[in-house]
Amino acid sequence: MTDSVSSKSLRFRKFRKTGEATLDDFEIVTETHADVPDAHLLVRNIFVSCDPTHRIYLTGEESYVPAFETGGKMPTFIIGEVLKSKLEGHKVGEVVCGFGAWEEYSVLGKEAVLGKCSPDVPLQSNMAVQNPVIGLTAWVGTRRICEISKDKNFVVSGAAGAVGSIACQLGISSGAKVVGICGSDEKCAWLKSIGCHEAINYKKGHVEAELRKACPDGYDGYFENVGGEISEAVLRNMKRFGKIALCGFISHYNHGAAGGYNMQEVLFRRLTVRGFICLDHFADAPECFGELQELLRAGKLECRAHVVDGHEGGKGVEACVEGLVALTRGLNTGKVMVKLGEAPAGYKLA
Amino acid sequence: MTDSVSSKSLRFRKFRKTGEATLDDFEIVTETHADVPDAHLLVRNIFVSCDPTHRIYLTGEESYVPAFETGGKMPTFIIGEVLKSKLEGHKVGEVVCGFGAWEEYSVLGKEAVLGKCSPDVPLQSNMAVQNPVIGLTAWVGTRRICEISKDKNFVVSGAAGAVGSIACQLGISSGAKVVGICGSDEKCAWLKSIGCHEAINYKKGHVEAELRKACPDGYDGYFENVGGEISEAVLRNMKRFGKIALCGFISHYNHGAAGGYNMQEVLFRRLTVRGFICLDHFADAPECFGELQELLRAGKLECRAHVVDGHEGGKGVEACVEGLVALTRGLNTGKVMVKLGEAPAGYKLA
Repeated sequence: MTDSVSSKSLRFRKFRKTGEATLDDFEIVTETHADVPDAHLLVRNIFVSCDPTHRIYLTGEESYVPAFETGGKMPTFIIGEVLKSKLEGHKVGEVVCGFGAWEEYSVLGKEAVLGKCSPDVPLQSNMAVQNPVIGLTAWVGTRRICEISKDKNFVVSGAAGAVGSIACQLGISSGAKVVGICGSDEKCAWLKSIGCHEAINYKKGHVEAELRKACPDGYDGYFENVGGEISEAVLRNMKRFGKIALCGFISHYNHGAAGGYNMQEVLFRRLTVRGFICLDHFADAPECFGELQELLRAGKLECRAHVVDGHEGGKGVEACVEGLVALTRGLNTGKVMVKLGEAPAGYKLA
Repeated sequence: MTDSVSSKSLRFRKFRKTGEATLDDFEIVTETHADVPDAHLLVRNIFVSCDPTHRIYLTGEESYVPAFETGGKMPTFIIGEVLKSKLEGHKVGEVVCGFGAWEEYSVLGKEAVLGKCSPDVPLQSNMAVQNPVIGLTAWVGTRRICEISKDKNFVVSGAAGAVGSIACQLGISSGAKVVGICGSDEKCAWLKSIGCHEAINYKKGHVEAELRKACPDGYDGYFENVGGEISEAVLRNMKRFGKIALCGFISHYNHGAAGGYNMQEVLFRRLTVRGFICLDHFADAPECFGELQELLRAGKLECRAHVVDGHEGGKGVEACVEGLVALTRGLNTGKVMVKLGEAPAGYKLA
């Protein structure tokens, strides 16, 4: 490798409350990394993540995190090869994951490194499982908030997405009856193939009736990813004392507002609705990651990847905007990620 | 007393989804009670209760309880004098409280009798404190769901109402900073007089800014009685990880729908919103009733009564409709009840 690298990154140029993200919302800045500070790694990014939260960050408003400023980078989960290491326990050539940005190379301090990627697991799967925004979010919502276990009825919206599909499989693995809601017949077929009791294509309508047919007794838990009319239909099918894990409202992120719940249903059915984000649950990460890795190795967890290729196509980090648009349009089945480079020897991409 | 009594009751004649209750929604039926079955009491009702839940029952739709049928009575909490007793532990002349109906006389089985009224407590206060729909509801929402204790910031909407005012005083008694939201300057003055840190008249607007001024750090707990714009303003002032006890949505009961919460606020602030009703919390009744009675005797709990007089005015049970309308218009400060008779010797009404 060369001693210094040029790294392109996307920076906030202007913020956007409504509508789809465009490349024009960002500027591309090149910086040079000659060396790394003590206790840091220089990493060549192989995959960078596109998540619904990025659409929220793009509003420029305070959300889970303080508002961003123009000129700032878009933080994201990355998987990359270590090019330089001044951090104990890490060596050149290994693949790590952690918190970087929409950029070609990341310099990660100790706190930003979340773990190493195992050569026997495809890096694409690690993009979902080791990513707290995905794996930990799915786990906390399913296990801690909805408290899904054997014999519970569990419904997941955005079920073919990265978080939703892991939530479904966590429910299935614990013996619950799992119903997934998604936006195409192809996604439905996939959800059934991974063990969902039923899969409902919301674009065909009748979600409320389909939910009732699938579990006439109603649902103990709801993993909420989308908001809007789907949520209304789910609310009317919840059991008394049911639990709802509010993960996100992807159907609303391009419209500037999250859907209103009919709170009368929440009251009459004595539901508990809890908003949560993975940042508050890092203490659960070892248990979560242990369970997900075990399922993965046992062939009981399928993590599909929607890969936007910034490498072969030559677009580089610009492809991140494309990934975000695919996500908000619901074009993806599984985890959206942008590929920026190849895996080093000994590792497999897919 | 005579051996048999004629008792008028209001029965559902037709149901009403929207608009104010009218007498025309009911028919008045007279029945005669000559005797009572074994293990029952015949009670002359002194006060019968009007509560927001009655507006819900009048929709004829399933709610906390199954839908009613035309011809059925309106169930309610009553306070009355025992005229005949075939129930062990109860004797003629004592005053009991329990579940009767909008009727002049009630025949109560063992399960319907909730307790005896103490001669040293005004019967009006018992109407709030011993009434599960009021006293237990306020207690469960404040203590179990919002978990209000010393140094917490607590906001209550419908704060001058029967439930809201007890919730406020439970918060105050435990050392929390309590802010009440209500609909008139007179109610505000009363809330301040009973110890609220601040009282906000929502009809003057600026609820969101006033809430921020009263507790710039935000609120740990919200006791939700009203819904609508007030709730939106509260949501934007909740602390992270705050708790919301969904008790009711009185601002909506004449309009056929409860307000939609902006769930994005619930998500970003990681709030827990829990719908609850007193029926599920009878196990807490002894602890609740003990605390409320203690506060009452110590002069630390003021239970205001909004008495609609069906006795002196000669309207009888018909006055229940008037009480319900007063409630949905927010004309009341404190517990709405209809007086149907005088207290027996040894008891005080107010």
